[in-house]
Amino acid sequence: MPNPSLLVVSAHAGDFVWRAGGAIAAATMRGERATVVCLSYGERGESASQWLAGKGLDEITALRRAEAEAAAAALGAEVEFLDLGDYPLVPTPEALVALVEVFRRVQPTVVLTHPLADPYNGDHPAAARMALEARVLAQAIGVPNADGSVPTQEQIIGAPPVFFFEPHQSEQSDFKPNVLLDITAAFPAKRAAMECLPAQRHMWSYYTDLAVRRGVQVKRNAGPNLGLPHETMGEAYVRYYPQVTGVLE
Amino acid sequence: MPNPSLLVVSAHAGDFVWRAGGAIAAATMRGERATVVCLSYGERGESASQWLAGKGLDEITALRRAEAEAAAAALGAEVEFLDLGDYPLVPTPEALVALVEVFRRVQPTVVLTHPLADPYNGDHPAAARMALEARVLAQAIGVPNADGSVPTQEQIIGAPPVFFFEPHQSEQSDFKPNVLLDITAAFPAKRAAMECLPAQRHMWSYYTDLAVRRGVQVKRNAGPNLGLPHETMGEAYVRYYPQVTGVLE
Amino acid sequence: MPNPSLLVVSAHAGDFVWRAGGAIAAATMRGERATVVCLSYGERGESASQWLAGKGLDEITALRRAEAEAAAAALGAEVEFLDLGDYPLVPTPEALVALVEVFRRVQPTVVLTHPLADPYNGDHPAAARMALEARVLAQAIGVPNADGSVPTQEQIIGAPPVFFFEPHQSEQSDFKPNVLLDITAAFPAKRAAMECLPAQRHMWSYYTDLAVRRGVQVKRNAGPNLGLPHETMGEAYVRYYPQVTGVLE
Amino acid sequence: MPNPSLLVVSAHAGDFVWRAGGAIAAATMRGERATVVCLSYGERGESASQWLAGKGLDEITALRRAEAEAAAAALGAEVEFLDLGDYPLVPTPEALVALVEVFRRVQPTVVLTHPLADPYNGDHPAAARMALEARVLAQAIGVPNADGSVPTQEQIIGAPPVFFFEPHQSEQSDFKPNVLLDITAAFPAKRAAMECLPAQRHMWSYYTDLAVRRGVQVKRNAGPNLGLPHETMGEAYVRYYPQVTGVLE
Amino acid sequence: MPNPSLLVVSAHAGDFVWRAGGAIAAATMRGERATVVCLSYGERGESASQWLAGKGLDEITALRRAEAEAAAAALGAEVEFLDLGDYPLVPTPEALVALVEVFRRVQPTVVLTHPLADPYNGDHPAAARMALEARVLAQAIGVPNADGSVPTQEQIIGAPPVFFFEPHQSEQSDFKPNVLLDITAAFPAKRAAMECLPAQRHMWSYYTDLAVRRGVQVKRNAGPNLGLPHETMGEAYVRYYPQVTGVLE
Amino acid sequence: MPNPSLLVVSAHAGDFVWRAGGAIAAATMRGERATVVCLSYGERGESASQWLAGKGLDEITALRRAEAEAAAAALGAEVEFLDLGDYPLVPTPEALVALVEVFRRVQPTVVLTHPLADPYNGDHPAAARMALEARVLAQAIGVPNADGSVPTQEQIIGAPPVFFFEPHQSEQSDFKPNVLLDITAAFPAKRAAMECLPAQRHMWSYYTDLAVRRGVQVKRNAGPNLGLPHETMGEAYVRYYPQVTGVLE
Repeated sequence: MPNPSLLVVSAHAGDFVWRAGGAIAAATMRGERATVVCLSYGERGESASQWLAGKGLDEITALRRAEAEAAAAALGAEVEFLDLGDYPLVPTPEALVALVEVFRRVQPTVVLTHPLADPYNGDHPAAARMALEARVLAQAIGVPNADGSVPTQEQIIGAPPVFFFEPHQSEQSDFKPNVLLDITAAFPAKRAAMECLPAQRHMWSYYTDLAVRRGVQVKRNAGPNLGLPHETMGEAYVRYYPQVTGVLE
Repeated sequence: MPNPSLLVVSAHAGDFVWRAGGAIAAATMRGERATVVCLSYGERGESASQWLAGKGLDEITALRRAEAEAAAAALGAEVEFLDLGDYPLVPTPEALVALVEVFRRVQPTVVLTHPLADPYNGDHPAAARMALEARVLAQAIGVPNADGSVPTQEQIIGAPPVFFFEPHQSEQSDFKPNVLLDITAAFPAKRAAMECLPAQRHMWSYYTDLAVRRGVQVKRNAGPNLGLPHETMGEAYVRYYPQVTGVLE
Repeated sequence: MPNPSLLVVSAHAGDFVWRAGGAIAAATMRGERATVVCLSYGERGESASQWLAGKGLDEITALRRAEAEAAAAALGAEVEFLDLGDYPLVPTPEALVALVEVFRRVQPTVVLTHPLADPYNGDHPAAARMALEARVLAQAIGVPNADGSVPTQEQIIGAPPVFFFEPHQSEQSDFKPNVLLDITAAFPAKRAAMECLPAQRHMWSYYTDLAVRRGVQVKRNAGPNLGLPHETMGEAYVRYYPQVTGVLE
Repeated sequence: MPNPSLLVVSAHAGDFVWRAGGAIAAATMRGERATVVCLSYGERGESASQWLAGKGLDEITALRRAEAEAAAAALGAEVEFLDLGDYPLVPTPEALVALVEVFRRVQPTVVLTHPLADPYNGDHPAAARMALEARVLAQAIGVPNADGSVPTQEQIIGAPPVFFFEPHQSEQSDFKPNVLLDITAAFPAKRAAMECLPAQRHMWSYYTDLAVRRGVQVKRNAGPNLGLPHETMGEAYVRYYPQVTGVLE
Repeated sequence: MPNPSLLVVSAHAGDFVWRAGGAIAAATMRGERATVVCLSYGERGESASQWLAGKGLDEITALRRAEAEAAAAALGAEVEFLDLGDYPLVPTPEALVALVEVFRRVQPTVVLTHPLADPYNGDHPAAARMALEARVLAQAIGVPNADGSVPTQEQIIGAPPVFFFEPHQSEQSDFKPNVLLDITAAFPAKRAAMECLPAQRHMWSYYTDLAVRRGVQVKRNAGPNLGLPHETMGEAYVRYYPQVTGVLE
Repeated sequence: MPNPSLLVVSAHAGDFVWRAGGAIAAATMRGERATVVCLSYGERGESASQWLAGKGLDEITALRRAEAEAAAAALGAEVEFLDLGDYPLVPTPEALVALVEVFRRVQPTVVLTHPLADPYNGDHPAAARMALEARVLAQAIGVPNADGSVPTQEQIIGAPPVFFFEPHQSEQSDFKPNVLLDITAAFPAKRAAMECLPAQRHMWSYYTDLAVRRGVQVKRNAGPNLGLPHETMGEAYVRYYPQVTGVLE
């Protein structure tokens, strides 16, 4: 069995916090490795307050990067930035090569990314498509490494499951969760990570409420007599490929 | 944690063998309890060769029952028969009361049944609808027991997950598996159960081939380096309610 | 090869004319047998002008029957009436037995009926469900005849393809045609049949326009160089089961 | 133009409060008539705490009725009860006749009811199917009144739009809102109605949070510069039939 | 409240006439501003008769432009041309910048464009994707203007609703209208605009018939007693984002 | 009527054999022309064993080409290679021009290609999108030939039907067959073609089993009394555009 390794592909610098912070913290609290790759900083599309405050592009980029690094630290995760630009996020061949390199280096056993539809933000599905494509390319021994070399068998990856995390407006994004994750123990770390993003202070309570709501569903859908705590907190996911298991449960 | 208890709701006497025999045997091989409830014997709709041989209804019913009992025994499962009649299977109020009684008595932690669509056989979705409705009614303390008494808290059931097993023509039945079950170790017992149904001898190889096919998909979709055996056998399922879990994997 | 035999299952007395008159006339013009079975007369739900004129139930029923007989004659088809009542059309066990009897007697090689959804008229999908269920029951040698006898091998039916004809508001009924039928030669007979229904005179031009529209699509979707006439008329259908063929074309 | 008249078809005695209380209060605050019809009291399926407290059926029924009457009063609405029984709610012919009578008497210009899917509660879609069927039957002059008489033209209804209100687990019920209703002004009345249901105290905050969440979406989806208040509250709906309008906006 | 401003994004020079002429004329007849932006002239893909007549590219382009200008004038609308080329219409970064500029200049309160699927013409969904992406980019203050400047708060746009107009083969394009627009008063202007396109004379009656058909649906789906005129004409639309409203009607 | 001409657009050098070999052989056995165009050799993504054996890109490419030529010969088909590269297959403008040239030269009356979804291999849907786009462009007289000339009326193509052949994991690719092709007579040629691909020896039995499974469905869905042979072999397809026909059957 390979060592667990969680890879989170995030379109912008803040996305991974709101939507997958619980899963990330839960993994690192189990002692597992978690890596976040931010394809862009969200410097154009998700930094309105800074632009309104008259800041410039470099300043905003540095700020977003620092915030994301603080939030990742609060979750116990590593973070890296591909700086591909946002609004729009463009899937160039070079971007794909860079992302394949990440997959091969991180050797993920689980992948999290955005869902494939989001009528409010085209960068999110673009990131998802790139993550899915990079995952398939990274599996193929015929696809060269970023330096042009033929990969070794240790460098290509297996078939890690992919989970889509929750978009901002779930129903409009055709997001029908098929996995409800209990993040009760991890929630304080997620909250701490959220508080690393002061410009979106109004989101703190919004995503806390969402965790309560998903927690209610965790309890409602759990099997018999699981003895879940009263204040269960949750995150919702869509598993993209079929679950492989030896036990139906 | 309650004791594991698998309940399989089967429209006709043979369905559980072909479609869920692997899951049943896997459960009993783990020492768990498995109960099959056949809503009918399939005496009219799935016994063509006996009718062609000039047998009468009672004779066919007895034969189907005996075969199902033998197959259940080969899988290590208990079996019971509600004898609701088939072609068509009609969801009367009385049938529902009887099925609620089964749920409350068996206290399932997992439920298997047919999927909700099958353009080739209306009894299969009828059975699924009955299983789903009985499951919800059995949860409610306000729904009386079959003898009219108010149920105790021990008698009502929790929220066991439901899995739909594979129909005969999967794509036409809009069956998109989201769970692939590894039944390699359980397959010999499944094969033995199939061979308890001599009238459908042509199905033995058909469902063996299907297990190979689903086994290929088990391997193709498994996470990295799982070290699955070369001859992995599989069964496909659709999980109806979201999976509740503490770990994404 | 069996003799071609077209069976049309129509919820109300007029439906088969507007939606499938072209297919029926095309069949009888090829010398084939066509049988229409009207489950009801549409006496309550589709006879508003007669009710407004102060007519009574028996009078309306007789009128609808006479009109349907005239329209069927114009199409060269036989017609029969099960008189099951409409608004709502209720799928009783007896109704199903009667419809199975029709299937076994007519031995259809092709079946036409309503689509499975219609938010404007619940009788239409009810008729479709009954037609589909009767078709499956009529195939089973274990399902007795209406007189209680076990059917002979000649009495049970095969697996005739089923086509859904066009509802009044196609998109709202999730009707996505996958078969476009050229009814150019049959259209005059269809028009004559429409004119047997004087109470719905406003529908004559509506369904003539629809035939033009579907005819445009016949030409637009036809393969290369088919040399179709300028004024191609069409009808749209949804094939329910997969087409079985020896040639892709 | 007819006088506005809102009809809410609710499976159980409490459903209309949580899911549509804002729309109801908004209508009555505009001086319009609103009528709630509860098909059952939810006496078996939604009264667990009373059953656990050892109360009997009649006692529970009376309690639920009194609570629903108080909640309706808080919303400014009339309420009536068909007492059809719940868990399961069975769509008998008599129930349909009674519901058609309500439609013809109330002459609704807008209809609210449950959505057509809910994997957690079969009574909800059953109520929706009954509401939709009754609406169509009530339009037909050939469908008799409850007393057997032929309806007058004033008694039959037109084609009021139908909106599905939000189920408890929206995504699992395939509920994709296409209408977001601003209930900011009506929310205090909705909250007051919720507080008429003390047995479900834990739902008060749950549905207040939901109103905040839907309010955020109201603002996010509103057209330019609408000047909505900071604390916009919302309810989500699915319009079933196409909107008819003279202006795209 | 901002001044109403309708923006129509049309793949080719003629599309806006056939599919949205009624909505455009209705807006200008209310004294509102309407702007059409044609991404291409349809010079390669929708000008077969001119190519067959031996005309050259420049000649065809000029002709298409003149026709579109005449049609827009007949509708009371302004028209502009981005000249991006067709067959295929390619969404280059430059094209997107140009379209964002249009959105910011026009400040639309309503946007009309093609639906997202059309198996007969890839330019139509390409135009829709560009329109949707430009609308989101134009909202972001971090996305620079075409001249590289940071936009002011007046230059960025709000969240105008988007409506997809009807494709040529609606069902095949998965077009399920959820808005039916009454264009009775605007139809003469639409007809006049159609007659500005003499090369497609065969479409005049086709789209007049379609307006009649959609008009029948306007009446069929309208609420009670709306007193619509006998010859109601209609256009069908799909609203992409949820409707935001204070009144359910 | 034009001469039958089958065009198969295959992403990689081997795809056409496994998925469409039966349809190709059936066509050539009827004396019809069949042309396969391989967009790439599958040199990176589908040649793992050669890469593992230490072979280089040119060697692998040559091997794949030779194998595909042998397989095509076994099917009686012509084959050509566009050498666009794989993993990823990129739809450049030049690639599209080359593919349009193939369509105009081959003048297909039937087109086969991959389905539009495949979560395991992005090249397959990319090939399908290119095939569909090229087919539409090749129809337009305004789209120039590869040499820049305006096409003659003989050079543009009509509207040949398109069929998607079966992906490796059908349900996961949303592949719901609506055409089942009887390939019993053609199967020996398909088997011979499979055996031209020794590196995928494990696929020989896999795709033979699949042909048996689809053959069972051919028989199950065939109309009455077709007298199909016991060992019917089949292939499954999805027809993309509606079938145009003069006879429902």
